[in-house]
Amino acid sequence: MRFIKLTVSYDGTNFVGWQRQINGSTIQQKMEEAWLSISGETVTVTSSGRTDAGVHARGQVCSMRTETDFSCRTIVRAFNARTPTAISVLSAEEAFEGFNAISHSICKTYCYYIQSGRILDPLRERYAWFVPHQLDIEAMSQAAQYVVGEHDFACFQSTGSVRRSTVRNVMACTVSGRQRGPFQDIDFSVTADGFLYNMVRSIVGTLIPVGLGRQKPEWIRELIEQKDRELAGQTAPAKGLFLDHVIYADDASGGIHTKEPTSTTVGLDGSMG
Amino acid sequence: MRFIKLTVSYDGTNFVGWQRQINGSTIQQKMEEAWLSISGETVTVTSSGRTDAGVHARGQVCSMRTETDFSCRTIVRAFNARTPTAISVLSAEEAFEGFNAISHSICKTYCYYIQSGRILDPLRERYAWFVPHQLDIEAMSQAAQYVVGEHDFACFQSTGSVRRSTVRNVMACTVSGRQRGPFQDIDFSVTADGFLYNMVRSIVGTLIPVGLGRQKPEWIRELIEQKDRELAGQTAPAKGLFLDHVIYADDASGGIHTKEPTSTTVGLDGSMG
Repeated sequence: MRFIKLTVSYDGTNFVGWQRQINGSTIQQKMEEAWLSISGETVTVTSSGRTDAGVHARGQVCSMRTETDFSCRTIVRAFNARTPTAISVLSAEEAFEGFNAISHSICKTYCYYIQSGRILDPLRERYAWFVPHQLDIEAMSQAAQYVVGEHDFACFQSTGSVRRSTVRNVMACTVSGRQRGPFQDIDFSVTADGFLYNMVRSIVGTLIPVGLGRQKPEWIRELIEQKDRELAGQTAPAKGLFLDHVIYADDASGGIHTKEPTSTTVGLDGSMG
Repeated sequence: MRFIKLTVSYDGTNFVGWQRQINGSTIQQKMEEAWLSISGETVTVTSSGRTDAGVHARGQVCSMRTETDFSCRTIVRAFNARTPTAISVLSAEEAFEGFNAISHSICKTYCYYIQSGRILDPLRERYAWFVPHQLDIEAMSQAAQYVVGEHDFACFQSTGSVRRSTVRNVMACTVSGRQRGPFQDIDFSVTADGFLYNMVRSIVGTLIPVGLGRQKPEWIRELIEQKDRELAGQTAPAKGLFLDHVIYADDASGGIHTKEPTSTTVGLDGSMG
């Protein structure tokens, strides 16, 4: 039995999310169907975290097991010949025995793109959230700093999720922006050891009142202390969200992993890492 | 009567092109309908050149006449409130009497995006042509130099078009590229005083055999001399093509224009400038 680590990029627009489900097509389903057609094997392709409907990925990481002896190069080519153009396998590597893309991840980075200002750029409409106001990037950047650190992020968890712990460690959270002709582009990035359900989209939605000057940057700190999702901002739409990359203890694979699965990394529902 | 110059960006994916027609929705139709709903006026919105189905624009320029006294700022806002998100009016300016976006243009720049190499980037799939081979960018760049200058470009004109002259002056034609992780991105740009039907897409399609090493860069010069469309390469797909910007003698508008309409600028069928 071999353990394979796959790095995958996808345009989530026309999928109902990562995870297999009854209604609608999913990235997991397309990958598992592709592998069945390649090898005759029925496998489970496990990702570092489920992405929701409409969320994109540049460097999602997946694990799978196989009895085949296809080279990693062949695995990449075979997947890409059988998946839709909205999904590409960027690389395949041999991983250590027992490699699991969820439980062995150290941290993940998500990016979120906002376009703001008076005028919408139609050529970014598919991949960015349009907020039709000029936003104060400096204030949003200050607010983002209050997210960094180990905190109880209950205020940024969508209701309905069941987690053993809502404490996560955010290593970095940045906001940058620029004027590009008539357009204002704002890039958000956050790296953490794990994310609660809708956490990134809740943080982004909560930065908007700060960018509009309706709340001070310190409001974010107060929200985190209050632990009440009702007080925070709206959930930003899926289309601006990209899973950028996932870090593992030994990215060259095949080596010794240094991190055991923990209760804060894997939720009871197994989602979002 | 006021003459207005509009700068417009659009995602052409879901349009059958710029020009009003019976079947399918067009950018011209959406803009003229928007203006009717804003002002009650039935106008013709004339662009610097018709773009085909699926072709995008960053800075298309249009002319229109109005009897209204809306400010230019109001015109921009009113259009953007009524056009689909795939179309944005970026600016409106007062133009000199008789301003016509086709006949007064000095030159236009088109960009074309190719993604090549073994692996397709699903996040660029909408806006770039995937050529599943590693291409020789240096050879393509050399080949592009043979396009520069005043030439008879009959070899790059799609059949069926009726032009009084197939001579155009290409001021610049460049190819640049870079490796981005597993992806090869190639950017093509061409500036000319006018373009024949499908000229940019024919040039791009003809650069591919050069990038593949099947033809020498000098082949492009020979094709131009031979004036035979059958000998050149395929027509590249619409989705990678962007009308980038259009130059007028007096871009501040309201001033003296220095260029009269010529037979090489406006084809008999009025298309493509």
